[in-house]
Amino acid sequence: MPQCDQHTLMVRVCMVIEQHLIRMKGHNALNTIETHRFSNGLRLLVEPKKNVKSCGLHWVFPSGACMDHHDQVGASVMLGEMLVRGAGSMDSRSMSDAMDRCGMRRSTDVGVFHLSASATMLGASLQDGIGLLSTMVLDPHLSGEAVDPVRSLCLQSLDSLRDEPQHEVMLRLRARHRHAPFNRNGYGERSAIESMERSHVHDAWRRGIVPDGSMIGLCGDVDTSKIVQLLEDRFGSWSGSTSFPSEAQDERGGVEHVHRDTAQVHIAIAWDAPAAAHSDAVLERVASRVFGGSSSGRLFTEVRQKQSLCYSVGGSYRVGPDRGEIVVYAGTTPERAQQTLDTCLAEYHRMSDGITEEEFGRARTGLESGLVFSGESTSARATALVSDQFLLGHPRSLDEVRAEIAAVTLEEVNAYLSRRSRQEPTILTMGPAALNID
Amino acid sequence: MPQCDQHTLMVRVCMVIEQHLIRMKGHNALNTIETHRFSNGLRLLVEPKKNVKSCGLHWVFPSGACMDHHDQVGASVMLGEMLVRGAGSMDSRSMSDAMDRCGMRRSTDVGVFHLSASATMLGASLQDGIGLLSTMVLDPHLSGEAVDPVRSLCLQSLDSLRDEPQHEVMLRLRARHRHAPFNRNGYGERSAIESMERSHVHDAWRRGIVPDGSMIGLCGDVDTSKIVQLLEDRFGSWSGSTSFPSEAQDERGGVEHVHRDTAQVHIAIAWDAPAAAHSDAVLERVASRVFGGSSSGRLFTEVRQKQSLCYSVGGSYRVGPDRGEIVVYAGTTPERAQQTLDTCLAEYHRMSDGITEEEFGRARTGLESGLVFSGESTSARATALVSDQFLLGHPRSLDEVRAEIAAVTLEEVNAYLSRRSRQEPTILTMGPAALNID
Repeated sequence: MPQCDQHTLMVRVCMVIEQHLIRMKGHNALNTIETHRFSNGLRLLVEPKKNVKSCGLHWVFPSGACMDHHDQVGASVMLGEMLVRGAGSMDSRSMSDAMDRCGMRRSTDVGVFHLSASATMLGASLQDGIGLLSTMVLDPHLSGEAVDPVRSLCLQSLDSLRDEPQHEVMLRLRARHRHAPFNRNGYGERSAIESMERSHVHDAWRRGIVPDGSMIGLCGDVDTSKIVQLLEDRFGSWSGSTSFPSEAQDERGGVEHVHRDTAQVHIAIAWDAPAAAHSDAVLERVASRVFGGSSSGRLFTEVRQKQSLCYSVGGSYRVGPDRGEIVVYAGTTPERAQQTLDTCLAEYHRMSDGITEEEFGRARTGLESGLVFSGESTSARATALVSDQFLLGHPRSLDEVRAEIAAVTLEEVNAYLSRRSRQEPTILTMGPAALNID
Repeated sequence: MPQCDQHTLMVRVCMVIEQHLIRMKGHNALNTIETHRFSNGLRLLVEPKKNVKSCGLHWVFPSGACMDHHDQVGASVMLGEMLVRGAGSMDSRSMSDAMDRCGMRRSTDVGVFHLSASATMLGASLQDGIGLLSTMVLDPHLSGEAVDPVRSLCLQSLDSLRDEPQHEVMLRLRARHRHAPFNRNGYGERSAIESMERSHVHDAWRRGIVPDGSMIGLCGDVDTSKIVQLLEDRFGSWSGSTSFPSEAQDERGGVEHVHRDTAQVHIAIAWDAPAAAHSDAVLERVASRVFGGSSSGRLFTEVRQKQSLCYSVGGSYRVGPDRGEIVVYAGTTPERAQQTLDTCLAEYHRMSDGITEEEFGRARTGLESGLVFSGESTSARATALVSDQFLLGHPRSLDEVRAEIAAVTLEEVNAYLSRRSRQEPTILTMGPAALNID
């Protein structure tokens, strides 16, 4: 047996351990994204996370409101409701019970592009949970008996909008600002829902619940290879693809007042902004934080804090695959409404003069902190993976997004703001009296 | 130099490492809570968390709506607004900018018992963030010039309630169901706000922003000893205490219809339930999940899924230090309102027959999963630490709460439900026509 220098050995052991720990830590910090594309076209996007027990899931299908036939707008909404009313060998109740036994917190939603199912559960229940969700979407009963109850709920949901003017004004803004059919919402149209038949909902399912164009995002306590295997087994014969419609060349934009006997005047404004994949998008993210950020943006400071024009005001940047938009909401008294609108418009125009070094620094810090916060939420990350894949064609790690933000300079933001075209905004007001708009 | 057996040495080294890793992991899983009580009475409750970079903060002061003088109801609300308008050497704008530079996401809120400041920031910015918040609450300008703008915002906030009937009906339910002054809300009273003077707000600050009765909850990337030191330095001369008022012996409960020309009828119902520290509280948590749980509770199943009476219905259990309550909300069409109300009441009464083994198991699984999800959110945990301290006199680790839930038996829940008194609920309806109530 060779003689050995204990000290040297210990030093080497320590080095090995240290490297190992650094790798572990690095792996954890990086949260590498694993992607898989199944032969039927379904995409799986996974960000495994150590040190958490939950797993966030976000599963989208190309079956959003824009996919409805123009005389069946609301089929996707009714489909979303009908999916949870029994599938495979389970009736509505036993499906819900089985999901409860997995400890699943879940919801379905109909957006413009996608119908989505979101869930948070323990990683230990993930396989069972995905199994149940698969049955729900691939083998739903969509029974004729469910049509009338679901129709009734969807009509009531539409009715309830009348009692939520802040929400309604934003939907009406979208309807006017975007080209059809991307100006629709997750409520459908009354006349179409009233006459919807089971076959229309079934058609929506057949056309839209297809693997090619569907994406599953997972983040948290998840073993990717097991999930790939599970889905391979489940999706043996699932096939099909679809494509989104193109924009209609209809008139859009302009100004509209909706008369309502509300206590407040609800003001909604939209401007076009860069699409998600445009190189200006990250510049607009910084700029719109300066403009509309909660508790310190220019709108908040000027309209609320300095002029006390309204309790609630804010602006945000929403990105889509082909277009983006900046939207502003303000709710105020009838007497203050004109000044509120004028101030919001003036603040938007003032942005073209650029932002200061200090504003730039604070906005960037805010975006970077926000990244860390959302990175700690498995459900937020699952949603972001899918959203990136849809909008950019690939998911981004937090480090990539961080690097993108860190690379932005004040000069770039201000150059962008000065070349941003002086476009006419779309304006929607709702309340007892119309406003003057030049 | 002694001869050495490399193998034996390596084995020992590995054992040491393994034990170390197990300890690390154990520490991480336990998330032990560190508490500190300062000599001035302030309590600090900290749950350090490895593997996160954020820190959630929840700081409460005994300065909620119940503390307002009966003819100055709204002083606390105005105080909450005025705190963010300058403190120490900072004016409103520079305070906001400094918080932005910390990447702080923050908000203030006025509840029944407490005025609270909540924030999420990076652990690396925590000391700066706490420094700024301390200045904000200990040395606010509360300038006379700010009174009129703040009054205006608070009145607008009150006005905006008229356009949110779902929210308004719940506040009116509370006003009727609870004894004064615990039946107040975070909006104040119009006449009091209209005549509020700077001295009233200053009094509210002097009386309520006191250390004894204040609590700071922190969870995430935090070094407790550093924070204790920081606060010791900051709070040199901060002193004072207060106590909450006692319940008035006023009439409460009953039935009320508020006429409104809304599209829907908004129905709100409340029953008394166990206080937080009562041994029945955990039994009610299980039971109320079966009763009102979203997407599978009895209310949801019966009212929405089976009878299609309304799109939106749910029930929840709210705990207070001396009382708890079960509250139900349903929004429906005028034609369906009577049946909706009747069904909600019938489902509550049916609970006294007990729940099934299956319902019990699913509810417990749901509560346990929910614990894991909230345990992964630093802001949710910071809030829970403070809430436990206030309601129970001590913070609970997730493991303690889990053990409490795991110890509950079906027999206990059903025994509780059968002895739950058949009390008259408080009922508030808002809409175009009143309902029949037996």
